[in-house]
Amino acid sequence: MSKIADVGHAIAVLQWDKEVYLPKGSATFRSQQIATLSSIAHELFTSDSFSDLLNKLSVDDSLSEEQSRNIALTKRDHEKSTKFTTEFIVKKSQTISTCFQAWLSAREKNDHTIYLAPLTELMKIVREEAEILGYEGHPYDALLDYYEPMLTVEKLEALFTPLKQELKTILHKISSRPQVDNSILHKHYDKDEQWKFGIEVLRNMGYNFDMGRQDIAAHPFTTSFSSQDVRVTTRIDENDLGNMTWSCIHEGGHALYEQGLDPKNYGLPLGKYISLGIHESQSRLWENNVGRSKTYWSHMLITLKEHFPNQLTDVSVQDFYKAINKVAPNLIRTEADELHYHLHVIIRYEIEKELMEKTLEIKDIKSAWNTKYKDYLGVDVPDDNNGFLQDVHWAHGSIGYFPTYSIGSLYAAQFFDEASKEITDLDKQIGNGDNAPLLEWLREHIHKHGQFYDAEDLCKKITGEGLNAKYFIDYVSDKYAEIYGF
Amino acid sequence: MSKIADVGHAIAVLQWDKEVYLPKGSATFRSQQIATLSSIAHELFTSDSFSDLLNKLSVDDSLSEEQSRNIALTKRDHEKSTKFTTEFIVKKSQTISTCFQAWLSAREKNDHTIYLAPLTELMKIVREEAEILGYEGHPYDALLDYYEPMLTVEKLEALFTPLKQELKTILHKISSRPQVDNSILHKHYDKDEQWKFGIEVLRNMGYNFDMGRQDIAAHPFTTSFSSQDVRVTTRIDENDLGNMTWSCIHEGGHALYEQGLDPKNYGLPLGKYISLGIHESQSRLWENNVGRSKTYWSHMLITLKEHFPNQLTDVSVQDFYKAINKVAPNLIRTEADELHYHLHVIIRYEIEKELMEKTLEIKDIKSAWNTKYKDYLGVDVPDDNNGFLQDVHWAHGSIGYFPTYSIGSLYAAQFFDEASKEITDLDKQIGNGDNAPLLEWLREHIHKHGQFYDAEDLCKKITGEGLNAKYFIDYVSDKYAEIYGF
Repeated sequence: MSKIADVGHAIAVLQWDKEVYLPKGSATFRSQQIATLSSIAHELFTSDSFSDLLNKLSVDDSLSEEQSRNIALTKRDHEKSTKFTTEFIVKKSQTISTCFQAWLSAREKNDHTIYLAPLTELMKIVREEAEILGYEGHPYDALLDYYEPMLTVEKLEALFTPLKQELKTILHKISSRPQVDNSILHKHYDKDEQWKFGIEVLRNMGYNFDMGRQDIAAHPFTTSFSSQDVRVTTRIDENDLGNMTWSCIHEGGHALYEQGLDPKNYGLPLGKYISLGIHESQSRLWENNVGRSKTYWSHMLITLKEHFPNQLTDVSVQDFYKAINKVAPNLIRTEADELHYHLHVIIRYEIEKELMEKTLEIKDIKSAWNTKYKDYLGVDVPDDNNGFLQDVHWAHGSIGYFPTYSIGSLYAAQFFDEASKEITDLDKQIGNGDNAPLLEWLREHIHKHGQFYDAEDLCKKITGEGLNAKYFIDYVSDKYAEIYGF
Repeated sequence: MSKIADVGHAIAVLQWDKEVYLPKGSATFRSQQIATLSSIAHELFTSDSFSDLLNKLSVDDSLSEEQSRNIALTKRDHEKSTKFTTEFIVKKSQTISTCFQAWLSAREKNDHTIYLAPLTELMKIVREEAEILGYEGHPYDALLDYYEPMLTVEKLEALFTPLKQELKTILHKISSRPQVDNSILHKHYDKDEQWKFGIEVLRNMGYNFDMGRQDIAAHPFTTSFSSQDVRVTTRIDENDLGNMTWSCIHEGGHALYEQGLDPKNYGLPLGKYISLGIHESQSRLWENNVGRSKTYWSHMLITLKEHFPNQLTDVSVQDFYKAINKVAPNLIRTEADELHYHLHVIIRYEIEKELMEKTLEIKDIKSAWNTKYKDYLGVDVPDDNNGFLQDVHWAHGSIGYFPTYSIGSLYAAQFFDEASKEITDLDKQIGNGDNAPLLEWLREHIHKHGQFYDAEDLCKKITGEGLNAKYFIDYVSDKYAEIYGF
């Protein structure tokens, strides 16, 4: 496992370098090198000797509880990856390549028709994949399981139905109130000063720069080469302070999770994050529950003003708090506010589910998309780059990924609610700029366990119940009622 | 071969990152990841299936001349690497680890005795290695062959004996003349401006930034992840303009060689540099024959003055030229001038040769070193950090590496002499800041061939004779006679 992890982390280094430092003419060999290492990792994981070892260890009753869990989870992944023939893997990978190129062309030419045939082909393979993997309820369940083990359509419906309804209600209330002005975020903010502030934000959260670093990337991401080398990236827009700030806090949240995994479990399930939803819960908790709260900024606005005294003279905490929580419908998921965000996700979820059910065909995606945007968000989609071509996920064959973004926010709200009950004066501590008690709580209850618990079990262990959308709904209802005065 | 190269280049990326961007607390897993990839590359190269393929191809008479050469050279390396048992490789690698740590401690405590026992142990293994490899003449030949295929003690003696003699003669003449003042190089030179100047230096040489980049490292080096991704590093000392400038030109020379290799031969001997000596010939040619010439600076001093107008007011090309060619004995090889440099190398060569002959024991290295420094350079060694502990090579088990540094300078002088004859007005072109004709000549005669020719054959093909120290001796005799007026 350690050897396989070494190869996997080498791939991560090559990918990180590709995103942050690769010269523009150097991509061809880099892609080849990543492909070679990927095939080596796959060979190691699916080799006969590895299978034999797993089979032997899975009936070994001298193992500790931790060891048994490591073996059981590895066996689960191993069985999944041995279900596919090499031909299937090659076919899928080639179709993804073609589809991704078609997506790039379609975006470049703003012509979605280029993309339809390759995506139809890829969708066929993805459906085949679901059949090979197997499922009990809905074919979509087989795919959801990749990103969020044990998540099903049934569970998602129970979460998304009230969420969608309540969001509509809150948004309706907001729309009837005076709107928020966030122009202070769009003054000119010097790049170098923003960078320095971002570093302070990360330090203040507890990110360890002795075992990590920040660099610039076009699309911010976090990557880990071991829990002792977890790197974040950010981007800076001189006319949008929010872009860098919340990408920094978001990636910082991901990074704190990775830095909190136990290095002695390197390469093992117990040294790895549970699921994308739990990972996202950590980034969202810091980004929103902490990073868009009034208490957080009652401290951090002082620091921010040291970097930008001219731009922020006379701006009160309350003004700033309102500006950073402005709610307005828009076309692009990654630029959405805390409320509309989930409508963007639900639209994608509904389309994916119907594609898997074959009640929707690829050629009808565009109209389904545009209709739902008008219906849920009230916006007209002017062109496909601002419509269904905006995300890369489908072109990568990643069906079932989007829901984890919302799942993350729901877990975040539920965890933060519990943390607020358990940690004495959490609000006051954050207001004093001291995030250590919160980080310690997350480390103790979530990070250090790796995959020892499933997501649902972990949630029950921490909060006394499974994932429940109620916490998120309560959080946003209270918050936006105060901001918009309804 | 392509697959093995992919793994090898992934290792190079991990090492590059380790030198330039690795957080200080992240070294442990990184070393493990590099070790894992190294063992995978070794397994691939020494596997039975690979051996079978090589054997089959080496008797295939349908191959082209290029293909046969690729097979023959691969077979040579393959036979070398299969001579060692896994036990031997593990033992050597562990001993190197111990010895390297002892070297670090010895340097830290300035106590060479810590280092002696591990180095004695490592030396035993290196001698054993030479026996396993086999040799015709001197046991040292087996090791030289690693770095400079087909180089022998016999050939080195024929090169170093006149070189040593002539260097002593020239240095004696210089010592009787008025000395050069190079204090203009030690004014304060702003780091950012030096960085910008370094980038211009590289561009002016013809280094392709679309397929490469420069970063900062403690010990400047060049690395290649394919001929389409060749990276250089430099360091900047605000009180020593020379440090950055010639490290930049030196690494740029290495990088131009790597960028000039044919990408269609990726992973094959014909897509790889010939030897360390030939590699060093490219860096030295640019660093010294070009980069310390009056013609080069007749153009580049104008550019340099744009960056540092205050520091260099009224400095003429002749003043600058003399300053950058100041000759003075010193203790540290990497800081030596163009003449003393080779005395540093010859001292190491003589000690290594005697160690291999067992006419010198490790415990007597220190006194042999100090005696030779007094004798050849006229300097007293005040402590071992400035003495035989200065280089890492021996602690890494690299015996036979040092001579390639001098071999590089000798090849450089011989190649540059030929280029000057073949290229019309080379001197004038360099004086005009146009290095393209020189680079094109190097590409055509050296870079593009990879290992199609052996070093010696390449030299004969280009210059009509094998490596001859005469060209270097003539070059430095003329140059320093003019500078010092003898």
